[in-house]
Amino acid sequence: MLSKNEIKHIQSLYHKKQRDEQGLFLVEGKKMAQELLNSNFLIHKIYATTVWLQQNDAQKPITTIVTDDELKKISQLTTPNEVLMIVEAIKASTPKIFNQQLTLVVDDLQDPGNFGSIIRIADWFNIPQIICSNNTVDVYNFKVLQATMGSFLRVHIAYTNLEDYLSKTNQPIYGALLKGNNIFETQLIKDGYLIIGNEGKGISNSLQQLITNPITIPKFGSAESLNAAIATGIIVSHFK
Amino acid sequence: MLSKNEIKHIQSLYHKKQRDEQGLFLVEGKKMAQELLNSNFLIHKIYATTVWLQQNDAQKPITTIVTDDELKKISQLTTPNEVLMIVEAIKASTPKIFNQQLTLVVDDLQDPGNFGSIIRIADWFNIPQIICSNNTVDVYNFKVLQATMGSFLRVHIAYTNLEDYLSKTNQPIYGALLKGNNIFETQLIKDGYLIIGNEGKGISNSLQQLITNPITIPKFGSAESLNAAIATGIIVSHFK
Repeated sequence: MLSKNEIKHIQSLYHKKQRDEQGLFLVEGKKMAQELLNSNFLIHKIYATTVWLQQNDAQKPITTIVTDDELKKISQLTTPNEVLMIVEAIKASTPKIFNQQLTLVVDDLQDPGNFGSIIRIADWFNIPQIICSNNTVDVYNFKVLQATMGSFLRVHIAYTNLEDYLSKTNQPIYGALLKGNNIFETQLIKDGYLIIGNEGKGISNSLQQLITNPITIPKFGSAESLNAAIATGIIVSHFK
Repeated sequence: MLSKNEIKHIQSLYHKKQRDEQGLFLVEGKKMAQELLNSNFLIHKIYATTVWLQQNDAQKPITTIVTDDELKKISQLTTPNEVLMIVEAIKASTPKIFNQQLTLVVDDLQDPGNFGSIIRIADWFNIPQIICSNNTVDVYNFKVLQATMGSFLRVHIAYTNLEDYLSKTNQPIYGALLKGNNIFETQLIKDGYLIIGNEGKGISNSLQQLITNPITIPKFGSAESLNAAIATGIIVSHFK
């Protein structure tokens, strides 16, 4: 049975400001719930139907049983899927140091679907970390999480001031610029940073100046640009 | 001045069934309108603010002047942008024949953003045609058009029965399967068909049997799969 206060609390976590203040976020659906149970994330509270609880009995102490109608009230899915979890956020402001690895750097990306796809690309290609500018869309945004298909559990995400951070590194900094080196004709080394720009504005001026290795995906046709996530996928696949 | 019937007519074109029956679709915004005026598409009707008309005087005969409030009523954009056009559809049921070219084949893709991104990839890499199964999302769906960023004007899109069509070709048919050849270690030839599967179900069984060249994007990490549009971008970039 769900109290009005509980519904209110859950719905408050739809908003970034509340997620940040409380250090909590929401995860929904059987598949994502299963992956979360196998991860290092700390689960705060579970709201599940009896069907889900029958298969996940060990989770009883932190689980509230809800009806399908109650689940609908707290779910952001069009078709709610048995379970909703409140989870403790792991969002660092200090990036980790990974040697001999490529790190993705995201500069003010706004589209949740794009960011989710990029996290999934990182997970596929074994890129351990994504460092985001403070104005990048929140990783715990519902649409971002859905688009990651669970990959957010395996990629370390940090938010920081990118100018400060990147100006201190000695590693190569790659960025896609109009007049960079053709990625198909360039020997890419395997570590360093790859900057991904905002969907409309590209890489901000202050960061462009920090790029040591400008690169370009050659254009054969007429499109003005590629979607940010598509460009990331193509470049990363050439690093590997 | 907009009549009620005109508003009704425009809004009817939000729906695929009506678009198909009337052979018309809607395009919005200054940038897309400009590209349309420079394309081979036939513009049926223009609804524009006086601001737009001042810069596009030659379009007067087919233009109805609307106020910002009227534009809001007929627009699907959150922020309507000066102009909306009714355009004649060019949607073929018979694919064109292009020699020595790669053709994309889309099998029941459902997500408008994914399909729009794939059209943009085709335009970037100079792929002249995309052949879609009859159950693929409509190219004139508003969200698809927005995601193409105008690229739908330059790529020929055909809808047909893929089994029938592909069973008659002698060209190589590529498809991403779990146990295909690593694309980074395969010499890809430059013509043929590349099948892109549905987001959830992948390539349907009947089409899998027609694949002559199974390929795979090697996985280095843990993600279960890549987004369909991302996978397309990576594979196509390796064809070029």
